[in-house]
Amino acid sequence: MLDSQTPAALIAAMAMRGRAASRLLARAPDADKARALVMAADAIRAAAGDIIAANAADVARGEANGLSGAMLDRLRLDQARIGAMADGIAAVAALADPVGQVIDMATRPNGLALSRVRVPIGVIGIIYESRPNVTADAAALCVRSGNAVILRGGSEAVESNRAIHAAMVAGIAAAGLPAHAVQLVSTTDRAAVGAMLAAEGAIDLIIPRGGKSLVARVQAEARVPVLAHLDGINHVFVHASADAAMARDVVVNAKMRRTGVCGAMETLLIDRAYPDPAALIIALKEAGCAVRGDVGEDAIGALVEPASEADWDTEYLDAICSVALVDGLDGALAHIARHASGHTDAIVAADAAVAERFLAEVDSAIVLWNASTQFADGGEFGLGAEIGIATGRLHARGPVALEGLTTYKWLGRGTGQVRP
Amino acid sequence: MLDSQTPAALIAAMAMRGRAASRLLARAPDADKARALVMAADAIRAAAGDIIAANAADVARGEANGLSGAMLDRLRLDQARIGAMADGIAAVAALADPVGQVIDMATRPNGLALSRVRVPIGVIGIIYESRPNVTADAAALCVRSGNAVILRGGSEAVESNRAIHAAMVAGIAAAGLPAHAVQLVSTTDRAAVGAMLAAEGAIDLIIPRGGKSLVARVQAEARVPVLAHLDGINHVFVHASADAAMARDVVVNAKMRRTGVCGAMETLLIDRAYPDPAALIIALKEAGCAVRGDVGEDAIGALVEPASEADWDTEYLDAICSVALVDGLDGALAHIARHASGHTDAIVAADAAVAERFLAEVDSAIVLWNASTQFADGGEFGLGAEIGIATGRLHARGPVALEGLTTYKWLGRGTGQVRP
Repeated sequence: MLDSQTPAALIAAMAMRGRAASRLLARAPDADKARALVMAADAIRAAAGDIIAANAADVARGEANGLSGAMLDRLRLDQARIGAMADGIAAVAALADPVGQVIDMATRPNGLALSRVRVPIGVIGIIYESRPNVTADAAALCVRSGNAVILRGGSEAVESNRAIHAAMVAGIAAAGLPAHAVQLVSTTDRAAVGAMLAAEGAIDLIIPRGGKSLVARVQAEARVPVLAHLDGINHVFVHASADAAMARDVVVNAKMRRTGVCGAMETLLIDRAYPDPAALIIALKEAGCAVRGDVGEDAIGALVEPASEADWDTEYLDAICSVALVDGLDGALAHIARHASGHTDAIVAADAAVAERFLAEVDSAIVLWNASTQFADGGEFGLGAEIGIATGRLHARGPVALEGLTTYKWLGRGTGQVRP
Repeated sequence: MLDSQTPAALIAAMAMRGRAASRLLARAPDADKARALVMAADAIRAAAGDIIAANAADVARGEANGLSGAMLDRLRLDQARIGAMADGIAAVAALADPVGQVIDMATRPNGLALSRVRVPIGVIGIIYESRPNVTADAAALCVRSGNAVILRGGSEAVESNRAIHAAMVAGIAAAGLPAHAVQLVSTTDRAAVGAMLAAEGAIDLIIPRGGKSLVARVQAEARVPVLAHLDGINHVFVHASADAAMARDVVVNAKMRRTGVCGAMETLLIDRAYPDPAALIIALKEAGCAVRGDVGEDAIGALVEPASEADWDTEYLDAICSVALVDGLDGALAHIARHASGHTDAIVAADAAVAERFLAEVDSAIVLWNASTQFADGGEFGLGAEIGIATGRLHARGPVALEGLTTYKWLGRGTGQVRP
């Protein structure tokens, strides 16, 4: 970047190069895109020494700047993590190409043969925070689906991201695909993020990957469409008909398998008619979970700390759970309609009619019956990978992988048809 | 509306009622939604006298306010137009319900049975201008697909819209669906539009239907996702291999069948190797079209007025056409990549390999081979109706009908699966 270049001019120039690359990528054969990613994975492995050296500089600067231990852990790369990064790219290379898929086709009465065919979206901007592996993951998914990508990582990982980006581009270019398929914003000037968000028409889609404040800023400012992942305030409702052992296992797994993931349960709803609510609360507590509740003043109430109104709208992402007794399915549906974030909600029930009503009426991206909310994940859903879990309602919802990074166009093949 | 109610409070209250109605609509059976629209159509026919009286008041006010003849014509309703409006609602009632369709399903190795099922988007805002029939069209499409709708029509049609809305709601409520499925913003305060555009999370999608200035305002201000239709700067490329009679017929139809529709051709691109470019220009001129061109100084050049640089980016929506000679397919692709608006572009060619490259490489919502661009229409595409033609790249592209007014959710049916 020239010193005289403004962030807006930098992003405009990158978007223009990205558009040119996207036109080449859009018509690249499946095998070429797959080979480019295999070569990018190889280049990452070969550059492990450079990447570790660059990462050491980031870590040293982070330590000097007083980054938390958790942030330093997310930032730190070693041979094993770089190997996993390369394996992840190679795994994306092996996924089926969505581009060119025919969604539907029909011949009109006038003989015009119409089809809808999947095509890449175009130029995608990814804005993310400290984890440098996003550089590889996100770039791989975009390239696999024929999109050019503009990456803007966190300033604390800038050297690591540069080294990973350089290796990936070397691999992609060696495979004959355009080097500008994957571009990294090299300035740490935060104004570059604003320029990406404002680049309506130049960047087709922005995907933020990071914490709430990043996603909130992106959603508040963006003029470019955003595929965003907001809170996962997820519920498990244990119905009166639930099998006790299944209910206990699903509830404990949904909360405690990993408490920091967006698919974790945050609120447990227990049917007042469920025979043994105490067993569920005790199981959570024995697993190390703090339980805050609104379960009355009796023996069960003594098991929990009192919940405040704010608890029902809180994504703890920690070993904390809110619990409420509700009046059957209707009580659960009313609580969920009011407090769920539209991410993932589950019911445990033996009564199939009750469960099917729950599946039909809960308005969330993912609704599960007799399964843990921790399955909310593109890999677990068989998508091979995910760029995120979308909590909006348009374009793509729930785990987003290659198909979500495509759009379609209508093709019509005629024999001279004119419209009367 | 209470006089003390701000536009933001008005829209918030309407959106809340719309959300409640949308939850009922989302689980309404196909037959109920169809019956509600049949009854709405009947109610429109029965209220024809009231609607005509209300419309006469709008027309009189429009005349007093000096509306143009074209605007008064768009505004004016008579028995025939009201009959057509009712027939349109009944036709939407007869369309297949997209809600509940299973997009795909699979059972994971752990036994979790996953499916993606179409569901309504939720609460949709429609912002439109003088044509009161949009009140009926848009409401019918939204209700058919299980969405609640908030309508904001032009102030010049306010009495007509109220009468149409009252009749539709009477029919819908008589069929047992919620009256708030279709709400009309009753104030003509333009701040209500701003409140709709700002209603992030309360309104799920805004669809503007109207001229460029309306769409531009909506796109510039909206915090709610927008499904917008921008310019149709559409091209027909006549390749050297084109059949001369077919080329003439397609070109004249694409431009002149109706010059004011978004699918009309605005620029004709002629391959320098095409044997008789003059015949195409003469055919357009004989059909009453003014032709502006960049075709050299020879005999053909004498047929056209000179084009300025701005002509290549102009949507005339009139009996005017720009024409350029280009160097084969690559020249046409370069011109289209630079100037097309991503709406509809067509090639006339006998050479199938050339045509297939055009279909693959032109990045527009609709790409046609040997057919008139005037086919760009949901009805012509077999969708039964359309709420508009989307020129964006996300969610839905090209003609948008019922499917485009839905999203999906993931349903998982398990037997107690927990994630290891």
